[in-house]
Amino acid sequence: MEHNLYITNSLSGKKEKFEPVAPPHVGMYVCGPTVYGDAHLGHARPAITFDLLYRYLTFLGYKVRYVRNITDVGHLEHDMDEGEDKIAKKARLEQLEPMEVAQHYSNSYHRDMHRLNVLDPSIEPLASGHISDQIDMIQKIIDNGYAYISNGSVYFDVPKYSKDNPYGILSGRKYEDMINNTRELAGQDEKHNPVDFALWKKAAPEHIMKWNSPWSVGFPGWHAECSAMSAKYLGMPFDIHGGGMDLKFPHHESEIAQSVAAYGVMPVKYWMHNNMITINGQKMGKSLGNFIILDDFFKGNSTLLAQPYSPMTIRFFILQAHYRSELDFSNDALQAAEKGMKRLLVAIKTLSRLKPGKTSDFNVDEFEKKCFEALDDDLNTPILIAYLFDAVKAINSVADNKMSITADDLEKLKSLMHTIVFDILGLIDEVEGNNNKLIDDLMSLILDLRAKSRQNKDWTTSDQIRDALKAANVIVKDGKDGTTWEI
Amino acid sequence: MEHNLYITNSLSGKKEKFEPVAPPHVGMYVCGPTVYGDAHLGHARPAITFDLLYRYLTFLGYKVRYVRNITDVGHLEHDMDEGEDKIAKKARLEQLEPMEVAQHYSNSYHRDMHRLNVLDPSIEPLASGHISDQIDMIQKIIDNGYAYISNGSVYFDVPKYSKDNPYGILSGRKYEDMINNTRELAGQDEKHNPVDFALWKKAAPEHIMKWNSPWSVGFPGWHAECSAMSAKYLGMPFDIHGGGMDLKFPHHESEIAQSVAAYGVMPVKYWMHNNMITINGQKMGKSLGNFIILDDFFKGNSTLLAQPYSPMTIRFFILQAHYRSELDFSNDALQAAEKGMKRLLVAIKTLSRLKPGKTSDFNVDEFEKKCFEALDDDLNTPILIAYLFDAVKAINSVADNKMSITADDLEKLKSLMHTIVFDILGLIDEVEGNNNKLIDDLMSLILDLRAKSRQNKDWTTSDQIRDALKAANVIVKDGKDGTTWEI
Repeated sequence: MEHNLYITNSLSGKKEKFEPVAPPHVGMYVCGPTVYGDAHLGHARPAITFDLLYRYLTFLGYKVRYVRNITDVGHLEHDMDEGEDKIAKKARLEQLEPMEVAQHYSNSYHRDMHRLNVLDPSIEPLASGHISDQIDMIQKIIDNGYAYISNGSVYFDVPKYSKDNPYGILSGRKYEDMINNTRELAGQDEKHNPVDFALWKKAAPEHIMKWNSPWSVGFPGWHAECSAMSAKYLGMPFDIHGGGMDLKFPHHESEIAQSVAAYGVMPVKYWMHNNMITINGQKMGKSLGNFIILDDFFKGNSTLLAQPYSPMTIRFFILQAHYRSELDFSNDALQAAEKGMKRLLVAIKTLSRLKPGKTSDFNVDEFEKKCFEALDDDLNTPILIAYLFDAVKAINSVADNKMSITADDLEKLKSLMHTIVFDILGLIDEVEGNNNKLIDDLMSLILDLRAKSRQNKDWTTSDQIRDALKAANVIVKDGKDGTTWEI
Repeated sequence: MEHNLYITNSLSGKKEKFEPVAPPHVGMYVCGPTVYGDAHLGHARPAITFDLLYRYLTFLGYKVRYVRNITDVGHLEHDMDEGEDKIAKKARLEQLEPMEVAQHYSNSYHRDMHRLNVLDPSIEPLASGHISDQIDMIQKIIDNGYAYISNGSVYFDVPKYSKDNPYGILSGRKYEDMINNTRELAGQDEKHNPVDFALWKKAAPEHIMKWNSPWSVGFPGWHAECSAMSAKYLGMPFDIHGGGMDLKFPHHESEIAQSVAAYGVMPVKYWMHNNMITINGQKMGKSLGNFIILDDFFKGNSTLLAQPYSPMTIRFFILQAHYRSELDFSNDALQAAEKGMKRLLVAIKTLSRLKPGKTSDFNVDEFEKKCFEALDDDLNTPILIAYLFDAVKAINSVADNKMSITADDLEKLKSLMHTIVFDILGLIDEVEGNNNKLIDDLMSLILDLRAKSRQNKDWTTSDQIRDALKAANVIVKDGKDGTTWEI
């Protein structure tokens, strides 16, 4: 079928038809983690949102180069160029070399993303690994007159840039309001204007992560890496830049300004932003005591959690909401997601055992059309998932001989459900582990013995089997077409 | 117990007592992969050898900072500064950005190392991520008079260095022989002397991976990264530098020369080298058609393989040989390793079910002493594993009521076997998968039903169970203390 993918472009605030700069190639850049702590829900949401987009674009036949960076230097405690470097601070507290901290949390991030079945991006560049690229870009900005050197540091000259270019184009902020709303400069401040931001910071002598530059031994400002690395690996302009809504300002706004100032090009055609996550209706934050890392979700290690939630439960839960809506985590909602996903996965298993009939009471072609219309409509996964449950209903009705489906339609439906659920939504059947074959073999023996004992009216044995399976969390169902089981 | 670890230092060719530069800290650097292809046995051996050392040093109480690099630029096809960059060539063939190639094979390397239960190093720096560190080091070498600029490239001046320092100290090569054995310089060669090696290469215009430097837009020579990154993350001198024997010359010899020339310090206290791998007695090589990547070993995807070999079979096989001996892979040897490892792991399971007696026929303290003496003797794992099989014998004898062991000794032996086999040798019981608990539950039900059918002389049912379990590869053993099973 023909696809017309529309995505909401944060630049216009509107749904726009997706037309890549140089089809069939798509360049996509997503802001990755600052690696000074374990990944939490705030990391899972953009990773899963843009994993879905990556999978869907690939499914549509595009050759996607997906770049997701790792920030291992330059992200200061306060986003406005103040405070200590987040990773250096963690390293100081843990008495480690900063790169040990960055490596540790990069590894733990990768482990959690793999559990969530998030595909590895094509390139995962480190900020610290692209110092010379950042220096080159900063030099260009200075040469073009949009940055100034102050005491060995380099700052982006926002007032100057704003005269020639629309600063605030992405976030919708007005330059005049920003000027009026920022605090007064203290006498010792290096900045000419409080709205200016750092491109290069001169390092204090005790600072560990620092490099030579034409201006000082120092380190790059937080925003510099994304502009330099996206330009390096995707060229300019490239197609899609994604990230969480909280990054719109100052991070992404500054990225645009840097690229325009350095290269004279609006760097990105489509900006996409996922909405935020709340926990039981509250903003998530370390200070609010409702901060749960992913590993604790998976293990149920938090007084806020009624039970452990598997990676696929988290993934399904995130996909059940539209990426542009706020999403509230609560035990009730997670338990509902867990239940729904199980129903969906059980139905896919049932589907593989259905017997074809002579007619179809389920219109697979129309179902397919509706599913892809939902995806094409700005990745509308909640609608898509609602359609999937229509199919679940139909599958269960066919299994109960209340509906019928032809052999052709059955094949089409099987293939479609696999494509959408496993390839595009990226779910995996977690019950299907390494030892799946062995469990199937053992269960098949047990069900044979159960059938035999029933036949022989040996109720002691059949009760024993029932009780043991119940204790092992195995549910056995006797249907018209034989006995099935699930965990 | 007290430990006196001795390791063979390639610098002296002798076993030397290990005494870190700044205890309890140990700095260890191991040459990692050049990421332009999937990992093969030649990658598994150093990774496992130095993983063992990392685990053992950690067990001994040292705080180890373990750095293992990833070479993603600068390693040319021919190790002597000629030919195309290995990664750029692969990228050209696959029509990808070089960093996509590097990322793809870094990811596949990590996946395979995780399967082999190789621990992540503390820091895993990329060559491309440390260009400015390499430039700084090269500048120092130039300033100290041991390198010259030629047509935008920088070469290490081996004759000059050799006058003041023992070039060849690690590999045992004599400078005079090297001079006599190298080919004549062609007229267009940039090198003053054929033994000189590149520190920085000016890039051709079409070259993709290139950076600004004081000498040209180019890229670092292969040896530069290890000297610059080890100095950065471990200081100088640091304790241990490891790698395969094939890296002694020119790579490690050049590293020493670079560090001495730049910083005036012999960079490494202990150089350690693992020996090479052969396949069915032949050198392994792409041109010889006996080149098997790890993933194919795990899946049995090669006409040279009689069966798949699990990651732990490969690990155990590598550990059965001393790291300084040549190791020949053959189906016979691998099958023997697989069998041996299973015997060992089954015995550890049996151990957990043993009943204590009043006396001990097995001297656990002496066993412990011998095991650690083997490890302390240059990581003599073949001897250590032979001792482990003495314990296996004893465990099985106690299970058969032919030997006895006291409760105290039993606890000690359990803890010791776990420490050595799982923590230090880094083996894992692969049968113990995600669904282990469920399998245990199902098997326990099946064995109950089997016992009942036998009791009732219902031979049909007991035969049915026997056949079904056999088909599922489950072996049931009836012993004096009950029935056990294994896969």
